[in-house]
Amino acid sequence: MDPEVRKQVLRKLTYGLYVLTARHQQELAAGTVNWLSQCSFQPPLVMVAVKADSRLHALVEASAAFAVNILAAHQKDVAQAFFRPTQVENGRLNGYAFEPAPVSGAPLLVDLPAWVECRVTDRVKRGDHTVFVGEVVEAGLRDGQACPLEMWDTGWFYGG
Amino acid sequence: MDPEVRKQVLRKLTYGLYVLTARHQQELAAGTVNWLSQCSFQPPLVMVAVKADSRLHALVEASAAFAVNILAAHQKDVAQAFFRPTQVENGRLNGYAFEPAPVSGAPLLVDLPAWVECRVTDRVKRGDHTVFVGEVVEAGLRDGQACPLEMWDTGWFYGG
Repeated sequence: MDPEVRKQVLRKLTYGLYVLTARHQQELAAGTVNWLSQCSFQPPLVMVAVKADSRLHALVEASAAFAVNILAAHQKDVAQAFFRPTQVENGRLNGYAFEPAPVSGAPLLVDLPAWVECRVTDRVKRGDHTVFVGEVVEAGLRDGQACPLEMWDTGWFYGG
Repeated sequence: MDPEVRKQVLRKLTYGLYVLTARHQQELAAGTVNWLSQCSFQPPLVMVAVKADSRLHALVEASAAFAVNILAAHQKDVAQAFFRPTQVENGRLNGYAFEPAPVSGAPLLVDLPAWVECRVTDRVKRGDHTVFVGEVVEAGLRDGQACPLEMWDTGWFYGG
C-alpha cells in the first residue's frame, strides 16, 4: 500500500465539526472533533474517536459520559477555539458561555445550535484514538434552522 | 428526553455516502452507508456501522473484511442503486462494473473515484447496527480530482 495514496483517499471522507465535552468531578474538558457518527437507531447510539493521549479522553473515560455540541456553519472560530487546551475563566470555557448537561454535567456551549448527551456503553482501544460508543440520554435544540459546519467549508483536514 | 428533539438533533450530523462491499467465498454483498469515519491515524483505522440484520453484515462478519467505495458528487444514482438487494448479473453488481479488492476480494466499483480495503479488527454489537472497526490494508485512487457525494446534497436522511 502506498501511504500517500491512502492519505489522499482517507481525506475524501466527509465530516462535520463538533465540540466534544466531558466532566469528571470538578474537571472539565472540551475539544473539536470530526470523527463522529450515529451508529444505531434503537437504542440511539453515537460513535466518536478521541485522541488517546488527550485530557478529553481521560475525562470521557473517567466519567463514562460525553456531550456532543454541534457547530453551526458560521462558527468556524468556535471550532478553532477548541483546538486549544481547555481553560475555564470567568465562568467561560475557552471564552464561550456554557451550562452543565442534565445527566453528566458535561459542558453544553449555549451559543451552539444543538447537542446530545451520551453515556458510554462500549469502547475500542486499538489505535491512537479510542472509539467510544455512547447511548444518547438527552438532547437539546436551541436553533432548529441552523445549518451545521462542515469540514469541507473550513479548508482543514483531519484524516489521512 | 423528547424523541422528536433527539431525532432533529441527530439529523444535524454531517455525512458522506459510500458503497460498502464484502465477499465471503463466492458470495458478494454491497450497500450504501453513511455512518462511517476514520478513527485512528496509526494504525490507519476506519469505523462503520452496518445494519445487523443485513446480508452485508453477515458477509463482513464471515470474511472479517470490507471495502469502502467513495461516491463522487454526481453519483447519487449509484448510491440509490445500492439501496436495493445485491444482484450480480452479466458480471455487474447492481448494474455497475467491479473488480476484486487485492486482499479480500470484496467488490471495488470501478466507476467510483477512490476506495480503501479494511481487515476487521474489532466490533461492537450493541444496537440495531454493529460497529466494525477495520484496519486499512489497501487503498486506491482512480480520480484524485473528484468531489465526494455528501448526504446534505441528496435531500436524504439516515439518522435520528
